[in-house]
Formats: sequence, structure tokens, C-alpha cells
Amino acid sequence: MAALDQLTLLAPGLLGGSVARAARAAGLARRIVLWARRPETRAALRAQPWCDAAPDTLEEATGGASLVVIASPVDQIATLAARIRPALPAGSLVTDVGSVKAEVCRAAAAALGDRAVFVGAHPMAGSEKTGWEHSRADLFQGRACFVTPLPETPAAAVETVTSFWRALGCRVTAVPPPEHDRIVAHISHLPQLAASALCAALAGRDPGWREFAGGGLRDTTRIAGSDPELWRTILAQNQPEVLAALDTYLSELQGLRAALAGGDLAAVTAVLERGRAYRAGIPPAA
Amino acid sequence: MAALDQLTLLAPGLLGGSVARAARAAGLARRIVLWARRPETRAALRAQPWCDAAPDTLEEATGGASLVVIASPVDQIATLAARIRPALPAGSLVTDVGSVKAEVCRAAAAALGDRAVFVGAHPMAGSEKTGWEHSRADLFQGRACFVTPLPETPAAAVETVTSFWRALGCRVTAVPPPEHDRIVAHISHLPQLAASALCAALAGRDPGWREFAGGGLRDTTRIAGSDPELWRTILAQNQPEVLAALDTYLSELQGLRAALAGGDLAAVTAVLERGRAYRAGIPPAA
Repeated sequence: MAALDQLTLLAPGLLGGSVARAARAAGLARRIVLWARRPETRAALRAQPWCDAAPDTLEEATGGASLVVIASPVDQIATLAARIRPALPAGSLVTDVGSVKAEVCRAAAAALGDRAVFVGAHPMAGSEKTGWEHSRADLFQGRACFVTPLPETPAAAVETVTSFWRALGCRVTAVPPPEHDRIVAHISHLPQLAASALCAALAGRDPGWREFAGGGLRDTTRIAGSDPELWRTILAQNQPEVLAALDTYLSELQGLRAALAGGDLAAVTAVLERGRAYRAGIPPAA
Repeated sequence: MAALDQLTLLAPGLLGGSVARAARAAGLARRIVLWARRPETRAALRAQPWCDAAPDTLEEATGGASLVVIASPVDQIATLAARIRPALPAGSLVTDVGSVKAEVCRAAAAALGDRAVFVGAHPMAGSEKTGWEHSRADLFQGRACFVTPLPETPAAAVETVTSFWRALGCRVTAVPPPEHDRIVAHISHLPQLAASALCAALAGRDPGWREFAGGGLRDTTRIAGSDPELWRTILAQNQPEVLAALDTYLSELQGLRAALAGGDLAAVTAVLERGRAYRAGIPPAA
């Protein structure tokens, strides 16, 4: 894609910081501006080679932006969109990195009105390690990224935002926001609950047993180390889809329990076989 | 420990092959002998620098053994112990790498009678990658290993087998077989079922969604790639403990579901917090 005049990142954490680094590395923007709520974060960002400016106000940060990436937690995206609206150049683009899309896309588009176009995005590149200090220029290489236009989102805006995420290294797929939320309820939010509940259940037995953990427990529960506050807002916004995904999982586990309790080892093996076949089709890490 | 005259490994896979490599690297045995059921495996093993001999018969393989490691699936350990009994030198030691211990330890000790002493062991170093081709000399470095003596097992035998696993790099803990089975039902067998059932549940929705998988789904489900046949025998032998562990997990998940369905986000966050605190205490990979 042609280089942007100015890329602005709001509330950069792991994902936002990595967008800035990757954009600098790929030469995607002549100027990269970051804004963070805390003055000490802004001061630290100013010292980074991938940050051209980190002004104190949202107005200064977004006034000259061609593209704004809102990298805040999902419950603050629409609020930030409303706050930057007056300063945004007419016709500029706004995207995000939020893990839930239906509510966010509607609210952010409404907040921007006809001043700027919101095109939601969700790169599948999160980690239990949050904070821009963990950001990396190669974080997005080969990662899936959803772009979630509303029916009324102009095609040209979708095209530009798609090109942007692609230029960062992502495999981009456009889906409507509700479909996005159904998909990630299953492949992201459900694994989070499965891992967290597994750890919580084990915490209720003898916590000393974890000294004996092998790689299986370690990997299966890695994401249980994620930030509970971030997940609270994600789960709250995607409640119905997450409940449906959780019910699918509970039903599978209950079937497995019944098979094992009844000594039906063929049925137990069948679940393991189905799981193995599914796992074999998950693309390897890039 | 003093070098053994002869270390014999029966049915070497990932773990057995790694014992041979690690023992050679650490100079734990003057002679390392392997036996596998299939002639082509024996031929391949003979070409390895950590294999001094791979004779065709169990009798030849175990006739001069100071220590035998039975690395077969758990349902074949006692059978192999019975088959090698006549050839074993009087007073030799036999250990294993099986994931379940109560049945195995009783049956293997009975099979050996007063000819040799069985001291069960379980190094927590398995992987979804099986087969001696994946074995590594450093597989056991820093890994937990259970040694599971029966009340009547002579202390000197427990001591020698403990020293052996320690010399391979393991952190060794002695526990009675039933306690071992309770512990691993929770920290190993339950994570396996959680990962396999998660994949099986997702397979029942749109399998194409896995193209969008991030690192969270990938890590949470890694062990779902494990061999279903191996796990069938493990689960069959540890059925009551696995059911109890599974019930603890189901109860945690159902509580989480109820909290989310009721909009009690504080209760949801509390589960995530408990899970995170538990996860933080799992020792990192060595």
C-alpha cells in the first residue's frame, strides 16, 4: 500500500505497540504518532525509534491522522472514537484491535458519524503478555486478522484497512461483526475459559501438585495467565455467543464423562480421535 | 551414581529412546541394550550410537541386565515383566515410564516375584510426538519424575532407581502408587481430556474456523494431537481418579457458565483471577 502521511495509535499495548513497530519496519507511514493515557507511558514511548511523537492530548495526536488505530480494551473503543471525532481530519479512517466486534463496530461508527469511517479489525495475535514493552515488529507475520465492515461501510475504506493489516503481515478475512463474534467465541474465548477453569479447578485441589507439571499442563493453561480485567470486558460484550460455545464444550465433556464412567472405551477413543483430527488441521505457528 | 554394567530398554519410544540417549551422554551404563517388538525397529536402533546391541529376543536383551526400563504402553508393562522374569539376573532392578501406577506396580511386582525388584517410575516428559525417532538426550532435564514404591519395596532398590532418574536430569519425588494416580489424574489426564474435548467440540461446529486460530487455541490444544490408543489404556487404568478430576473441572465450568449467564461479572473475574494465580505458580519449562 502507499505510505500513509500519519498513522496514529491510541492506547498502545502489546498489539498497538507492535502495529507501530511493524508499520515503521515496513515503511507504511511517514509519521507515527502515539497517545497513551498516562504521562509516564507517553514519556517512555517518545524514546522509541518507532514513535515520532507522543503528544499530551488526543486532539494533537489525531489532528493530522490519515489512519487511527484504537488499541484500547474493548469497552473504551467507542468512547475514544467519540473523543477524537472533533479533531479527526474529514474522511480519515479509524480501525481497532478489539476482540469483540458487534457492539464495538456499531458504537464506534455512530460515535464518528460522518467525520471519519470506522472499519473494525481483530488481529489474532494477542498473548498473555500485555503491554507495549512486549511488542514486536514481527508479531503479525502470518497471523489471521478479521476485518469486520458494517453493511454500510464504504468499500474503499474496507480496502484500505485490509491493505494496512495485510502490509503488517496478516492474513486478512472480512466477515460481518456478528459472525466474527460467533467464531472467536469458539476459537478464542472458549479456549480462554477452558484454560482458566482448568487452573481454577486445580487450585481447589492440592496446589502443590503443580510442581509435578509436565509440558501438557503448562501449554494447556498458558493463556490462563491472561489479564482478567481485559477478559471480563470481552466476555461481557460477547456473552450470548460465549455461552453457546461453552455449552458445546460442556456437552462434549459430559459425553466423554459418561463414556468413561460406563467403561465405553471405544466412545472415549472416538472423542480423542475426533479431537486429534481437528488439532491436526490447525495451521502451525508462522 | 556408579555406572551400571548393563542398562536394558524394552519397547523404546520417545521416553525409552531418550533414557538411552541420556544414559549414554551421562555415562550411566557401560552397555546399553534395547529391544523392540518389530525387527525393522531393532535394525534401526542398532545403527544408533547410544545402542550397543538390539538382540532379537527378550531373553538375550535382559539376560545380563543390571537395570531394565520397560517403556511400553501401560497395558503391556506387567506382561513384559512376566516374560523377562526367567532371563533376568537374580537381584536385578526393573523400572518403567508408565503414566498410571497403582495397577502396574502391583502387577509388575507380582510378575517378577522374588527374581527382581520392580520400582515404578513416571517421568513427566511425554509429548504428543511419540516414537524413539523424537527422543532427545536432554528430554529429562529439570522434569519432575515420580518414583512409586510399594510398601514392601526394599529401600535400597528405591534408592538406586531414584539415583538413576536423578542422573538423567529429573527432579524425583517418591509417592505411593495410588497417590501418584490421583495427582496425575488432575495435572496430566484431565488436561488431556480438556484439550481433546475442546477440539472435538470445535470439530462439531465449523472446522474452517480453525484457519483463524491464534496462539491461544494452538497452545491450549497441543496435546490433543496425542496418540488416542496410548490414552485409552491410561484412562482405562485410572478411571475412578480421572472421573473425580473431570467432575471437579465440570463443576468449575458450570459455575463459570452460571456466573456469565447471570451477568455476575465479578464472579466470572474471580474464576479468571484464581486461574491466573494458579498458573503463575506452575514452574516454567526447564
